[in-house]
Amino acid sequence: MTATPDSIDWREQRPVELTEILRHACDCFYENGFHGTSVRDLASRVGVTVPALYYHHANKEAILAAVLAAGIADLLPYSQAAVADAGDDPVAQLTHLVECIVRHVASRSRLVALDAEYRYLGPEARAPYLEKRRALAELMRSVIQRGADQGVFVADDVTETTRALLGMLQAIARWYDVTGPLGPADLAARYVGFSLAIAGVPRSYDRK
Amino acid sequence: MTATPDSIDWREQRPVELTEILRHACDCFYENGFHGTSVRDLASRVGVTVPALYYHHANKEAILAAVLAAGIADLLPYSQAAVADAGDDPVAQLTHLVECIVRHVASRSRLVALDAEYRYLGPEARAPYLEKRRALAELMRSVIQRGADQGVFVADDVTETTRALLGMLQAIARWYDVTGPLGPADLAARYVGFSLAIAGVPRSYDRK
Repeated sequence: MTATPDSIDWREQRPVELTEILRHACDCFYENGFHGTSVRDLASRVGVTVPALYYHHANKEAILAAVLAAGIADLLPYSQAAVADAGDDPVAQLTHLVECIVRHVASRSRLVALDAEYRYLGPEARAPYLEKRRALAELMRSVIQRGADQGVFVADDVTETTRALLGMLQAIARWYDVTGPLGPADLAARYVGFSLAIAGVPRSYDRK
Repeated sequence: MTATPDSIDWREQRPVELTEILRHACDCFYENGFHGTSVRDLASRVGVTVPALYYHHANKEAILAAVLAAGIADLLPYSQAAVADAGDDPVAQLTHLVECIVRHVASRSRLVALDAEYRYLGPEARAPYLEKRRALAELMRSVIQRGADQGVFVADDVTETTRALLGMLQAIARWYDVTGPLGPADLAARYVGFSLAIAGVPRSYDRK
């Protein structure tokens, strides 16, 4: 059962829960790419036999699909909860949504950085992943559109504003190190500032 | 000989000049990744023999290095020329720099999208590519720092502002289609707007 937005504390720190196989698969794919990782390499890294690996996952593609699913898991319901928790104010909605996405990316940067590997999935394995990405973009777009309609955002091109925001946030995954000087909350605060600026909210806007 | 910034018309549209081998290599790496592409696949796609391919490139790693080099080629001197052409005003400098980077990404989006494959290069092949990326980031950082020092930018965290800008611009490569509705000049205009906003320049700033 999927948790409903109302029951979610969207700000909570969510540790990534990966099986041993998926944890090593994430590292292998990150270091050598999907095609640079053989099932044999992976089994040896996990410390199991190849048949043991196949007991859990049908093939290497299914392992990549599971890794990508873990990378995006919960992001949509958490993001919906974050927006719902902001009431009707588009500025508060964008603030919550960006904080939620940044916390997500910061909590699993290596998994999120694997995003581009989705293109090695066949159409069937690819569809559910792309559908979740599409739904998140649609949520962001609806917040931007609402703010533009109400005149609190300056967004002449809602599509491009949405893309720019998501591109900027996704890029965090490529360098963020959770053991570095910037904790998730500070990181989120900075990107909330950048995002409101992109949406055209004056810095002096009095946030509730 | 590398062109000096003064002799560069940094706004000119630069077609990417790739050899047949590198053009096909870019497509192969994009579709199947570095490790998913064999030298045999590539030779067959180019329509030459494997030894003919090895006549031009020592190995597959050298081909990836050449593809990545083509993706970043000229970006640094063009960016330096763009900044130099803006005089002393940090707003004009950032405007030019972002326009220059967006035009570059738009003119070779597929090549730029291969950026993350650099991690499959060994340390020696990797160094010149990373050095060019580092120098570009340093140029961006110096412009942001200058604007912050002069009080025309609001950038409490120059490092993060630089990263956010470069991450947003790099992300364009993942979706931009030069045959789509948005031409490079319009695309650049939008991202100049987003970038000035991130740097904290009020929308009403009177640009020269």
